[in-house]
Amino acid sequence: MELIIPLDNQGNIPMYQQIYQYMKQEIRQGNLKAGVRLPSTRVLADHLKVSRSTTQMAYEQLLSEGYIEAVPCKGYFVSAIEALVEVREQPPGQFVTQEAAGQEGFVVDFSPRGIDLDSFPFNTWRKISKNILVDDNKALFLNGDPQGEYALREAIRSYLHSARGVRCSADQIIVGAGNEYLLMLLSLVLGPNRVIAMENPTYKQAYRVFISQGCQVVPVEMDKHGMDVRRLREAGNSENGTAAPYELPDTAYIMPSHQHPMGIVMPVKRRQELLAWAYEKEERYLIEDDYDSEFRYKGKPIPALQGMDHGGRVIYIGTFSQSIAPAIRVGFIVLPVQLLARYKEKAGFYSSTVSRIDQNILYQFLTEGHYERHLNRMRSVYKGKHDCLMGELKELEAEFDIAGEHAGLHVLLTHRKGMGEQELEQKAAAAGVKVYGLSRYFIHPEHNQYPSTVVLGYANLTEKAIREGCRRLKEAWEL
Amino acid sequence: MELIIPLDNQGNIPMYQQIYQYMKQEIRQGNLKAGVRLPSTRVLADHLKVSRSTTQMAYEQLLSEGYIEAVPCKGYFVSAIEALVEVREQPPGQFVTQEAAGQEGFVVDFSPRGIDLDSFPFNTWRKISKNILVDDNKALFLNGDPQGEYALREAIRSYLHSARGVRCSADQIIVGAGNEYLLMLLSLVLGPNRVIAMENPTYKQAYRVFISQGCQVVPVEMDKHGMDVRRLREAGNSENGTAAPYELPDTAYIMPSHQHPMGIVMPVKRRQELLAWAYEKEERYLIEDDYDSEFRYKGKPIPALQGMDHGGRVIYIGTFSQSIAPAIRVGFIVLPVQLLARYKEKAGFYSSTVSRIDQNILYQFLTEGHYERHLNRMRSVYKGKHDCLMGELKELEAEFDIAGEHAGLHVLLTHRKGMGEQELEQKAAAAGVKVYGLSRYFIHPEHNQYPSTVVLGYANLTEKAIREGCRRLKEAWEL
Repeated sequence: MELIIPLDNQGNIPMYQQIYQYMKQEIRQGNLKAGVRLPSTRVLADHLKVSRSTTQMAYEQLLSEGYIEAVPCKGYFVSAIEALVEVREQPPGQFVTQEAAGQEGFVVDFSPRGIDLDSFPFNTWRKISKNILVDDNKALFLNGDPQGEYALREAIRSYLHSARGVRCSADQIIVGAGNEYLLMLLSLVLGPNRVIAMENPTYKQAYRVFISQGCQVVPVEMDKHGMDVRRLREAGNSENGTAAPYELPDTAYIMPSHQHPMGIVMPVKRRQELLAWAYEKEERYLIEDDYDSEFRYKGKPIPALQGMDHGGRVIYIGTFSQSIAPAIRVGFIVLPVQLLARYKEKAGFYSSTVSRIDQNILYQFLTEGHYERHLNRMRSVYKGKHDCLMGELKELEAEFDIAGEHAGLHVLLTHRKGMGEQELEQKAAAAGVKVYGLSRYFIHPEHNQYPSTVVLGYANLTEKAIREGCRRLKEAWEL
Repeated sequence: MELIIPLDNQGNIPMYQQIYQYMKQEIRQGNLKAGVRLPSTRVLADHLKVSRSTTQMAYEQLLSEGYIEAVPCKGYFVSAIEALVEVREQPPGQFVTQEAAGQEGFVVDFSPRGIDLDSFPFNTWRKISKNILVDDNKALFLNGDPQGEYALREAIRSYLHSARGVRCSADQIIVGAGNEYLLMLLSLVLGPNRVIAMENPTYKQAYRVFISQGCQVVPVEMDKHGMDVRRLREAGNSENGTAAPYELPDTAYIMPSHQHPMGIVMPVKRRQELLAWAYEKEERYLIEDDYDSEFRYKGKPIPALQGMDHGGRVIYIGTFSQSIAPAIRVGFIVLPVQLLARYKEKAGFYSSTVSRIDQNILYQFLTEGHYERHLNRMRSVYKGKHDCLMGELKELEAEFDIAGEHAGLHVLLTHRKGMGEQELEQKAAAAGVKVYGLSRYFIHPEHNQYPSTVVLGYANLTEKAIREGCRRLKEAWEL
């Protein structure tokens, strides 16, 4: 075989290294296959018009890293490097999708991130898509409004107003592909050097985005009503019991409708206290993540905090990932009017991340009443699963405290005698059941003051699976 | 009428301001309609249990901002504020889409950003969508791989390898919703304090993203072969003729296949010089934007710079916005292997911004041969338009230099006698034709050393429109 290696004798990279790099890449990419015999160092040197010591050095490097092997009296051969490159086999023409959350060999996975897809209205979705993709809808294939199409924003506004008491105009809404992207945009709008207070435990993805965008995050402990405002005020001091002194927060990220993962529904009084905190100083904002607000089982629904704000200090963030499906990749933020100019200046040039086609599908889903019907159906489906789980958990009440059951799609179990979350997880796993220790939701897991708590989600489980899972848990935990 | 205003007497916001804010919001949102008579300050004060001076101050503030009007002997009335809030009317149930680029009252718009949508394979796209949205494809509605589905990445890899000579594995590819989003991710991967050299003029959206992500951008002038490597080396010094001294760039953003907007195709020698620059120091990278590379009319195609790189210093970025349609919102970056770990650490938690459904549609479009057929068809369509335009521009050659015609979807006209771009634009506009002055592509428009150059795109024009536009231009420019 003849190797054609493009060599650059102008640059500062030594020749042997260029040869080594090139061959390594060819091997890694499978262009040089395992078992292929390579030219001798002499032949290759002649061929490339370089000295033999150059090719020898290149081969030695490849040998030392395991890319090639030397067989005495036979020469150099390409190694089998399956272990080095990730080889994934796949039949041609098939789009392999990850399996639904909750596999990995568990019989029952109480994943808090699942949703029920059996109830997804595939026919409706397909029919809408089909009607949209017609020739005279050409403009749909062009780039649209960076904030999202006005009609969709107006439909979202109308839904938020009636269902959540959110007060805004469509101009305040920004549509984007998922929570993380929108929080990234929001970080740009809020500007650098923000100090963001987050409930602890919290939604870790939001934490990761803020950190990656250069914000400082200050964890603030909760009491039974949610973020502790006294601690929020003291969070800047070093005497607040945490190891590291933080700067004073100017922004608080909260989940009043159903705190994730604690399940706390924040009472009105606490909401007012947080608003008062925000009003005290210029440039203080509350970020209200209204995740999970669609599903409630007890008590009268509390409108969004945003609707109580008459000072323009609440940024509202929501998503259709939970209420329709994660793959929809559509979320939205509602900015206070005074942040709109800043958004336009600092992030308004970012083109929309949601295709106009998808925006149109969602728009029709919302405005033709499908969304309302779907939500009503899902409320009843999830209520059924919730009641089934709560019924099964009755027997555990002697040994466990159960919390967070008034809303959302998961509950928390706390072992009263203090069996650790790892032990609870491991015993469940041994019985084929996956449960989720609470520590994973803490910014600093060592601050977890609930060491005996695990989270059980039920959205993507059938009632049969819920019963089977609970039966196994009772055995595993020796109840 | 009775106004129910939620007042917070715990917070630090004065009462009058709470009343003012609330009423302003109600008026802006149209809950209080123009012409409605408001309660008197006395009645409102009684009703809200506040002092009359409080309601008077609130009303004065509203008066001074034009939200309400005082009519002597009659009272206070809500103003008509169409001018204040953007009121957009829209028939219910209809998704209003922006018109195709190139309206605004022009007869012919030589927009450099258009694409030809008449040739879009609507039927194929619809058929693929329909086949995907079936019940047993449920997993498609869940969240997928943050980098994009492996099968799609493999299809992109295969296309890039054969069409552009890009050498990579699917593991190096990250799929995302559009260029801006991907450049944002890339900024996270490259880390803070990057100093990025950009060709001047350049693709301004990339410039805006880098700035918004806190990078420093250093404009580097081009010669006829593209970015001037000597100037790149000197860009850090203050003696390079620019006003502000910059830091030494460690990254260069270049468009070797068809510089936007200059249309320069970078020769191999210059590419090697840029690679040599990158190899000289650790942590130097070239970002190759391969925009427009699909369409060439003259000369043999030059493979991507990425394929020449054997040191892992080229980051390749591409998109399907131009070759399929902007609304597809799918682009991709190819990272060198040594940046993959950094991507996973710093940005790997960002969920994919492209829905799995859309990824699957594109995957089938690529792997079932539709993309290749579509590209071949578009090449011939655009070649026809290109040749038509070049034929029409023949007569202008006496007074104009024509450049950038070997590739891409636009050309540049430079008036030899030095008529300024504003005059060229204005005279064209008076004749109903939109052309685009080159200054808009400069990082600092005052550095534009081509003051007599305008850009003409032709992708979304029919040949008839091209002929009509050229006829009008000749008249307008008195040729």
